[in-house]
Amino acid sequence: MIKVGIVGSSGYVAGELIRCLVHHPNVELDFLYSHSNAGKSVSDIHKDLIEFSELKFTEIINPLADIIFLCTGHGNSSKFLSENKLSDNTKIIDLSNDFRVNNDKFVYGLVEHNRELIKKSNYVANPGCFATAIQLGLIPLASINSLNEDVHINAITGSTGAGQSLSETSHFTWRNNNISVYKAFQHQHIPEIKQTIQSLQNDFNSELNLIPVRGNFTRGIFTTIYTKSSLSETEIVDLYNDYYKEEPFVFISKNQIDLKQVVNTNNCIIQVQRIDDKVLVTSIIDNLLKGAAGSAIQNMNLMFGLEEATGLKYKGSYH
Amino acid sequence: MIKVGIVGSSGYVAGELIRCLVHHPNVELDFLYSHSNAGKSVSDIHKDLIEFSELKFTEIINPLADIIFLCTGHGNSSKFLSENKLSDNTKIIDLSNDFRVNNDKFVYGLVEHNRELIKKSNYVANPGCFATAIQLGLIPLASINSLNEDVHINAITGSTGAGQSLSETSHFTWRNNNISVYKAFQHQHIPEIKQTIQSLQNDFNSELNLIPVRGNFTRGIFTTIYTKSSLSETEIVDLYNDYYKEEPFVFISKNQIDLKQVVNTNNCIIQVQRIDDKVLVTSIIDNLLKGAAGSAIQNMNLMFGLEEATGLKYKGSYH
Amino acid sequence: MIKVGIVGSSGYVAGELIRCLVHHPNVELDFLYSHSNAGKSVSDIHKDLIEFSELKFTEIINPLADIIFLCTGHGNSSKFLSENKLSDNTKIIDLSNDFRVNNDKFVYGLVEHNRELIKKSNYVANPGCFATAIQLGLIPLASINSLNEDVHINAITGSTGAGQSLSETSHFTWRNNNISVYKAFQHQHIPEIKQTIQSLQNDFNSELNLIPVRGNFTRGIFTTIYTKSSLSETEIVDLYNDYYKEEPFVFISKNQIDLKQVVNTNNCIIQVQRIDDKVLVTSIIDNLLKGAAGSAIQNMNLMFGLEEATGLKYKGSYH
Amino acid sequence: MIKVGIVGSSGYVAGELIRCLVHHPNVELDFLYSHSNAGKSVSDIHKDLIEFSELKFTEIINPLADIIFLCTGHGNSSKFLSENKLSDNTKIIDLSNDFRVNNDKFVYGLVEHNRELIKKSNYVANPGCFATAIQLGLIPLASINSLNEDVHINAITGSTGAGQSLSETSHFTWRNNNISVYKAFQHQHIPEIKQTIQSLQNDFNSELNLIPVRGNFTRGIFTTIYTKSSLSETEIVDLYNDYYKEEPFVFISKNQIDLKQVVNTNNCIIQVQRIDDKVLVTSIIDNLLKGAAGSAIQNMNLMFGLEEATGLKYKGSYH
Repeated sequence: MIKVGIVGSSGYVAGELIRCLVHHPNVELDFLYSHSNAGKSVSDIHKDLIEFSELKFTEIINPLADIIFLCTGHGNSSKFLSENKLSDNTKIIDLSNDFRVNNDKFVYGLVEHNRELIKKSNYVANPGCFATAIQLGLIPLASINSLNEDVHINAITGSTGAGQSLSETSHFTWRNNNISVYKAFQHQHIPEIKQTIQSLQNDFNSELNLIPVRGNFTRGIFTTIYTKSSLSETEIVDLYNDYYKEEPFVFISKNQIDLKQVVNTNNCIIQVQRIDDKVLVTSIIDNLLKGAAGSAIQNMNLMFGLEEATGLKYKGSYH
Repeated sequence: MIKVGIVGSSGYVAGELIRCLVHHPNVELDFLYSHSNAGKSVSDIHKDLIEFSELKFTEIINPLADIIFLCTGHGNSSKFLSENKLSDNTKIIDLSNDFRVNNDKFVYGLVEHNRELIKKSNYVANPGCFATAIQLGLIPLASINSLNEDVHINAITGSTGAGQSLSETSHFTWRNNNISVYKAFQHQHIPEIKQTIQSLQNDFNSELNLIPVRGNFTRGIFTTIYTKSSLSETEIVDLYNDYYKEEPFVFISKNQIDLKQVVNTNNCIIQVQRIDDKVLVTSIIDNLLKGAAGSAIQNMNLMFGLEEATGLKYKGSYH
Repeated sequence: MIKVGIVGSSGYVAGELIRCLVHHPNVELDFLYSHSNAGKSVSDIHKDLIEFSELKFTEIINPLADIIFLCTGHGNSSKFLSENKLSDNTKIIDLSNDFRVNNDKFVYGLVEHNRELIKKSNYVANPGCFATAIQLGLIPLASINSLNEDVHINAITGSTGAGQSLSETSHFTWRNNNISVYKAFQHQHIPEIKQTIQSLQNDFNSELNLIPVRGNFTRGIFTTIYTKSSLSETEIVDLYNDYYKEEPFVFISKNQIDLKQVVNTNNCIIQVQRIDDKVLVTSIIDNLLKGAAGSAIQNMNLMFGLEEATGLKYKGSYH
Repeated sequence: MIKVGIVGSSGYVAGELIRCLVHHPNVELDFLYSHSNAGKSVSDIHKDLIEFSELKFTEIINPLADIIFLCTGHGNSSKFLSENKLSDNTKIIDLSNDFRVNNDKFVYGLVEHNRELIKKSNYVANPGCFATAIQLGLIPLASINSLNEDVHINAITGSTGAGQSLSETSHFTWRNNNISVYKAFQHQHIPEIKQTIQSLQNDFNSELNLIPVRGNFTRGIFTTIYTKSSLSETEIVDLYNDYYKEEPFVFISKNQIDLKQVVNTNNCIIQVQRIDDKVLVTSIIDNLLKGAAGSAIQNMNLMFGLEEATGLKYKGSYH
């Protein structure tokens, strides 16, 4: 059994990790570190986990755990690693954006792009949620050097993406039935997307125009991506089908897709269409699973030589 | 023009009051007191009021205003009045629960019950939102001494009822698609309901069993009320139709009702049915209007001798 | 492997059954009968099941299947059985209300009440969704003959309970942010609840007052139940803890509960409190799982001698 | 008093028109034609209008009405006019898309663009809802010939935009918490937008790329629009402020905007920003008011020489 520790265990992503890992056949939860909730039962915070009320948050970190997931928030992972000495054998998957770009120690954990590197790595930087949906929508085109025009992206996210801290834009009265934009063209996930695209298509220097939108739902990211292209409909559809044909969690749909098709699953579903002179890619994920905890476990499975989909085939919650 | 001041101007109820009063033909907004937002534009906080951006919050209270609405929250109204000397001619409508029960100075402002007293009063305690929906559902029966069995009430409220402060149960991620109960049998509005019923039916001593429910919507209160009764269907329907036939804001529906019929209106819609040995009353209001700001303005209109419905016939927002 | 057939495969409950059964370790889907969708891929209708697009709806029923789930809607199950000759060895679980009350052939499939009978039965009538939440809230009290006063029940249900047919009350524009009541005191699940209670407490003849409420969410049933009782808080809590201590899917919570704690799980969570002279029981389930497909599989597991929880421990979708 | 008739009175837009017109000081409802609901009370269909239950739907059209609003759906207005002979003095406002583009008889009713023409016209084609939000976001740039690069538009709409007919994508269970795209790059409102832009900037021949999105809310349209531009931030902001400074219903916000700021109002709020080499315009309206019934009344006011904002200043429903 793999001994797993989680740091920052009381947040949404950590909650989802725990929810996933309690059913993972090769995992034993070793410690769930939470400074603010030490001593409490996990089900006091993640209240659906009532069946696992014997699990407690601790203030103790086992530096000999086989793997530690860092869910401490952006900027805090580097701080944590500088303040805590871990065993050389302890693998790390970091879910913040501290180590995603231009990092020598951490491999960027987009499985569909870096699978072989991840298998050999002890340190993985888990991709951002928007970045995952967008990259899976773009890398087939980049792989044949076909991203030669500006790319236009609109991405609508559920509220869990903003975490559990209380703020005006997370207040139910404000957000219910509301829509708004934030960080237009300037979201922090753009650099990691560019890094991946340029690793496939070295000469990529078009614009990645990203408009992030706050949606009035809790789970999921719905992304539309378009760019001008000279590829035919058949070429594009074949490209995507071929690129992802062996992937356990990426599916190409022939039909219109809607966000709830991926909710509570680790799947990414993509639809590609050619309309006029443009390619339109629609890409959907569950931000807490494929966009965070699910892909982190997918990375863990690879790092420990397990079958990649182990423990990750969840019953969805379509309705 | 009636010079109106509002104390505690940045909360939801005050926002709704301002939204109503800017269109009231007999009112001039004299001051909008808000300690924390003094100097800001009203539209910085109540963001839909962009057309009225010249209105500012102040830290100054005009003790000579014709009327002051107190929206400061429970316990703070008494404090405010003890610390601020107002003119003897200044009328007061308090929207907290400080003066609703057993109070000599303030008249209880349920218009449909105390209209004549309110007309002659300078100090009115505006009813609670649950209390309004429930009392309007019960007072016809009390008026003929027919509340002789225990009363069973379930009331589902929108999130605006809990105000704009941030809390776990007001977090979008938590509340969206969620339902929960609070203060079962012990809600603070029960005493004011009892007081009104007993003023009509002196010997009332049955139980008022109230289960308040947090709904996953923002506006409105949906209440079901039932009790055993020997009255026939016709007697009951006639009673309610007759009791409210002159009321400008209470309507008896022959059909099933749904909450959105009253959203963004000052109306209360009631359906009464006899089923088996019970009377079932369904009563709906918009908690921010008939349950707070709307009834406060209805009270103001009466206190100043205006036609009662002045400025209160809003276009609803059914969809 | 158990060969499973489903009749009426395109509805919500059937969709949920398929979603569950594709991951069940002892099951093989033998046929998915749907007259209207024969020939189509399952994922054309249950669109999240894109991974299982090779599964097709058929117009052929295999009368030799090991077990058939009937998801054909109320009244249609009897019709189906009279028109189709099945093997004597084929077990049946019916999800309609055709065989729940006073039936000699079908055992009533409330596992927590009839476990031993179900194990020996070939024909099981799966309980109604409201009935499940309410019975699990009441049977501990009935088991000690303590239901001696009228029982007051309010149950708020998600829209999936009304199925996928289009109607005014299932229209998004109508139902979003809306609340309404239907079939007050007259819901069709009351007889099956009474039947179970009377099998435990023969002399039960109090009223079961049930107000069903349409909630503005898709999944789950939130039920409050109260009745007068002379039992102490400790007696009540001990009773429930003891009654359900071996149950794999029923949990007693010490804290306030909220609906989403059970969404996408087969769990029922119950909170019991004594307040004044009353017992208040809050009981929550996911109507599509514990209220339908999940309990049907729980029944199947028992009927085939499998460990009862096999394939039923799902990752919840709390947020 | 203006005698108003409505054809197609039972739909959402007609309901909103009635809701608005019952409070309009210069209007008398002459007839409400609805073939399918003739004889019924208006409040049987538009259920919030319980106060106006004496209003009935009729099967009779008064050809002498001062003005008739056609709410019959796309394609049906031409049919209606060919089958019904109206008085030459009867004005018409058509809310379908039958007469919006290249029409000699009907003036295109975008008030902010065609005010003077509308004042002199008897026949007005009311703009589409998407078209209104987008045009108000673009015409200031077109007015100075500054739309010289492709325009990228994402527009999220509430469910009322799809009308009250029942369909899979209007089913609550499907749409709640869901997001989807439809008619990408091919929405029927694009031609009317182009027509207006080209009337201001004759040489406009860039692409208008519109992605329409189905949102999980009922009211409102949230639009982001961007294009490359060499104008400075100050030039852009001044342009928009200046362009709309006399408009009663268009407001330029200095701050981030969110959809609910315009819900239940006839306002359009616009934010303009320069980010990198692009102009980003965010434009929001209530699709039933500024996007349909509200602008229709604004047109009517102009056509009858009334003050333009008469009867159109509604209390919003921000929360």
